[in-house]
Amino acid sequence: MKVDGKHFNTIWIKSNDESVIQIIDQRWLPHRFVIEDLTTVEEAAIAIKDMHVRGAPLIGVTAAYGMYLAALSASDEPESNFMRKIDQAVDMLRSSRPTAVNLFWALDRQMEGLRDFDGGVEGKIRLLLDLAGEIAAEELESCRLIGEHGVGLIESISKAKSGETVNILTHCNAGWLACVDYGTATSPIYLAHDNGIKVHVWVDETRPRNQGARLTAWELGKHGVPHTIVADNVGGHLMQHDMVDMVITGSDRTVYTGDVANKIGTYLKALAAQDNNVPFYVALPSSTFDWENTDGVAQIPIEQRDESEVKNIIGLNEGEIRSVSLTPETSAAANYAFDVTPSRLVTALITERGICSADESGVLGLFPEKSDQVG
Amino acid sequence: MKVDGKHFNTIWIKSNDESVIQIIDQRWLPHRFVIEDLTTVEEAAIAIKDMHVRGAPLIGVTAAYGMYLAALSASDEPESNFMRKIDQAVDMLRSSRPTAVNLFWALDRQMEGLRDFDGGVEGKIRLLLDLAGEIAAEELESCRLIGEHGVGLIESISKAKSGETVNILTHCNAGWLACVDYGTATSPIYLAHDNGIKVHVWVDETRPRNQGARLTAWELGKHGVPHTIVADNVGGHLMQHDMVDMVITGSDRTVYTGDVANKIGTYLKALAAQDNNVPFYVALPSSTFDWENTDGVAQIPIEQRDESEVKNIIGLNEGEIRSVSLTPETSAAANYAFDVTPSRLVTALITERGICSADESGVLGLFPEKSDQVG
Repeated sequence: MKVDGKHFNTIWIKSNDESVIQIIDQRWLPHRFVIEDLTTVEEAAIAIKDMHVRGAPLIGVTAAYGMYLAALSASDEPESNFMRKIDQAVDMLRSSRPTAVNLFWALDRQMEGLRDFDGGVEGKIRLLLDLAGEIAAEELESCRLIGEHGVGLIESISKAKSGETVNILTHCNAGWLACVDYGTATSPIYLAHDNGIKVHVWVDETRPRNQGARLTAWELGKHGVPHTIVADNVGGHLMQHDMVDMVITGSDRTVYTGDVANKIGTYLKALAAQDNNVPFYVALPSSTFDWENTDGVAQIPIEQRDESEVKNIIGLNEGEIRSVSLTPETSAAANYAFDVTPSRLVTALITERGICSADESGVLGLFPEKSDQVG
Repeated sequence: MKVDGKHFNTIWIKSNDESVIQIIDQRWLPHRFVIEDLTTVEEAAIAIKDMHVRGAPLIGVTAAYGMYLAALSASDEPESNFMRKIDQAVDMLRSSRPTAVNLFWALDRQMEGLRDFDGGVEGKIRLLLDLAGEIAAEELESCRLIGEHGVGLIESISKAKSGETVNILTHCNAGWLACVDYGTATSPIYLAHDNGIKVHVWVDETRPRNQGARLTAWELGKHGVPHTIVADNVGGHLMQHDMVDMVITGSDRTVYTGDVANKIGTYLKALAAQDNNVPFYVALPSSTFDWENTDGVAQIPIEQRDESEVKNIIGLNEGEIRSVSLTPETSAAANYAFDVTPSRLVTALITERGICSADESGVLGLFPEKSDQVG
């Protein structure tokens, strides 16, 4: 999407230098627009772990490029050493964050590509670069298609409201900053807006890392989409008072039976949506499906991050980015990064292949080739 | 309760100077412990409006003392002017905050006291001071009794868990800082802790003003009660994983038919509690009951505060209290301060007269003298 008139993706190969991957370092938004060079797999792993990049699709793409960077660093090694380095890189990236399944999917896909490939070290490096580009392009196209499929849902509500503004609540950032472009939850919203449908987005702040207040608000603003930031506590009140027509969120992992792991607090919004008959949609590319587990609440590992993310926050003070402490020094804090919304609370899933019910038959109906794998 | 070994209430008459009311200016906690002098009704109204004091019971007590300060300022006026000043003071205080019903209750009670009282200006000043003290003493006693009545609920869970720690989630600050002493939601918790029952409190941060992270954590810490701060998004996840045995919140206004207005986000926790069979209790003195309205969601006025409270936050940075900006400058924010939890989600109310179901028969069972008034 555009940033002050110039088109950006979230990750790209540096122009004229294939040894450098560039990302938007999202930690400093909306206060600073910082581009970071990644030149080693260690830097890629840190970028994922410390959330310079975040969002399930973008984590996967960054990991794929991270493997390429690992390969590049090992280009002078004999092939057996080279492959050992690749395995180490996979282990490092695999342990960077536990919940978003796209990470494992992208790494598996790169390893799958290398298997039985006999193009030598140089060939393998090129293959990993090409595959990373392929993954990025597919994720981008999936997000675009999610928009195409999802926009009809917004359009229907707009029609039912005789063209009055459609109020959409979203949690966290499932925007283009979480993907390569377009976003998942935001893709139908951008398309609706571009098509002239009146939309307004309630942006959940999304504590503790404020991806909504920092990132979603920033990107909606840059694209000219009307929006209002609210504390995470507010959504229930809005729904009670008919101020929300639909909820759309993204997902970090969705089991094929329909339970949705997403940013902590999503479950609370889903409960409020159900209690007030507001449809609750989850937008995700197929790379976010977990085809193994069936019980999201019991089985999806939930990342716990450092308490400092709850006890402190950064913001802009007199032109400087500063961290301020919010709590008593001696109080402990817990920082669960995700929760799981049971499928019973999800109206439908919006994927690159279309919209389906959040259950096994719905998901396998769109992805029949997975039926054997999950059987 | 004690602050570093010394006992404090939240509001008191200055020692040796009856013309000054002193409060803890809660805006600076936990970073600074600041005592503020109130010498005029204007200062009292600002203290309420700008939340130097907050919490339904304390707002009421502060308003009562505010009327006394107004009277004191008008002590040289002839009686008719004096009464006009009193009326103006009531109007000013009445418009300071709209949701907490204790404010109106305390002002009505002061005006009721003045009606038919013929002690002259001096006598009226004394009466307003005495009545404010009476209100403060009653609120304190109500909070103490809420502890006595509520502690059994914690004790039962403790027994059922064979003495293992009872995990209690609370939202906002319904602690002694919200009252004169003891607190509402915290009163049973302090008593349980003092009685040797193992308790641990999940403290909801409570954006946007972070009364949980700043105030509840601070006062629990000062009293030695084990606690952990969590973002407001986390409670649902905790309940899904059996990490919450009960929820206790306070209330800013509860209609006698059982709907509970409380800090924004309370409704979301009540939904999660219901979805996970966690009991959800509301602790309140009878001054918090609204004896007129019957439909909380439709009828209780919900305060909207300035968007700056969402877009900025204060905290400690290098020993200085600083405000940092959290959002894009151009994004709007909405700041609804309360929401209403429908009675169907409330397990029971804990009052100074005992525990009752959150419905008309339960409430009037404890307060039969109100039956005529609400009929």
